[in-house]
Amino acid sequence: MPGDTRERIVDAGAQLFGRQGYSGTGMKQIVDAAQAPFGSVYHFFPGGKEQLAAETIRRSGALYGQLLPAVFDPAPDVVTGTRNFFAGAAEHLRETDYADACPIATIALEVSGRSEPLREACAEVFEGWIELAADRFVDAGIEPHTARDLAIALIAALEGAFVLAQALRDTGPLDVACALTATAVRTALGD
Amino acid sequence: MPGDTRERIVDAGAQLFGRQGYSGTGMKQIVDAAQAPFGSVYHFFPGGKEQLAAETIRRSGALYGQLLPAVFDPAPDVVTGTRNFFAGAAEHLRETDYADACPIATIALEVSGRSEPLREACAEVFEGWIELAADRFVDAGIEPHTARDLAIALIAALEGAFVLAQALRDTGPLDVACALTATAVRTALGD
Repeated sequence: MPGDTRERIVDAGAQLFGRQGYSGTGMKQIVDAAQAPFGSVYHFFPGGKEQLAAETIRRSGALYGQLLPAVFDPAPDVVTGTRNFFAGAAEHLRETDYADACPIATIALEVSGRSEPLREACAEVFEGWIELAADRFVDAGIEPHTARDLAIALIAALEGAFVLAQALRDTGPLDVACALTATAVRTALGD
Repeated sequence: MPGDTRERIVDAGAQLFGRQGYSGTGMKQIVDAAQAPFGSVYHFFPGGKEQLAAETIRRSGALYGQLLPAVFDPAPDVVTGTRNFFAGAAEHLRETDYADACPIATIALEVSGRSEPLREACAEVFEGWIELAADRFVDAGIEPHTARDLAIALIAALEGAFVLAQALRDTGPLDVACALTATAVRTALGD
């Protein structure tokens, strides 16, 4: 089942690149984790590690992006959605013993100056998340420009809180970032 | 001048680890950048790459931490200090063509689950920055617990905005994070 092998390689790559970054993850390690024959990785990804990483960034980005509608849309309002979004991230971080934070931040920082294809993949993912969040703020009645700024603030606050939380092994920074962002959303709603 | 050689190795390591992360930086590259003989690095750092990285994290953290008093103390108030802090970071990012953002964030995300000595070094640095910022908010009359939360929010907002700014090659996220943080500081001051 070659289709399955390719899927397993991308899934293994997404998890390993997300946790260890680009330089810290070898193709051999990915192939082993995917229980795939070594040659298969270059069969499916003739562009090698960079091509595989670009695909894992987009895959992880799409999966993680689904959390925005999944968390915001059932919430009674966007302030509650914002709070639930940070609370879910904090819970997941504790559950994975601080291993899984943002799936692409490590690689985004690592490669920003070194690989234009990978930087572009990260930029596309961040843009997608910003749009998904901004749409929800617009639907709540917030003016589009303010909604976009709030969406950028939401993603930035989460990313920065993840950096501190992983280093400090404490989800406190996520609570602080949550409170600040929720207040900004409430203010934008005119409440 | 063995003292100078050691300094050059730490300086080169700080820059390379900061830009490329831990896994992406080899000892050979550091030694070459420092114009030092290869053997000298193991003479000065018998614990190898991990020992050198721990020292560069603390060195970069102390240097970067000096920016907090340097920017906040001459400012007429902490709201202006907050604005100037983000503006300075944005200017530096543009000046270095998006190469130099936070000197330790990449390594902090990379090693958080893999090297306890390096995670601890990053945690010490972040704690130091939080204290330096919190002290300034306390001096401005903000209650200590709120001051600490604001300091965490400031560092988290900056770190997260750096992640987005480097990927998007745009300092817009720093402006957004700045506005949000400055508003939170103003609110805490009761203005």
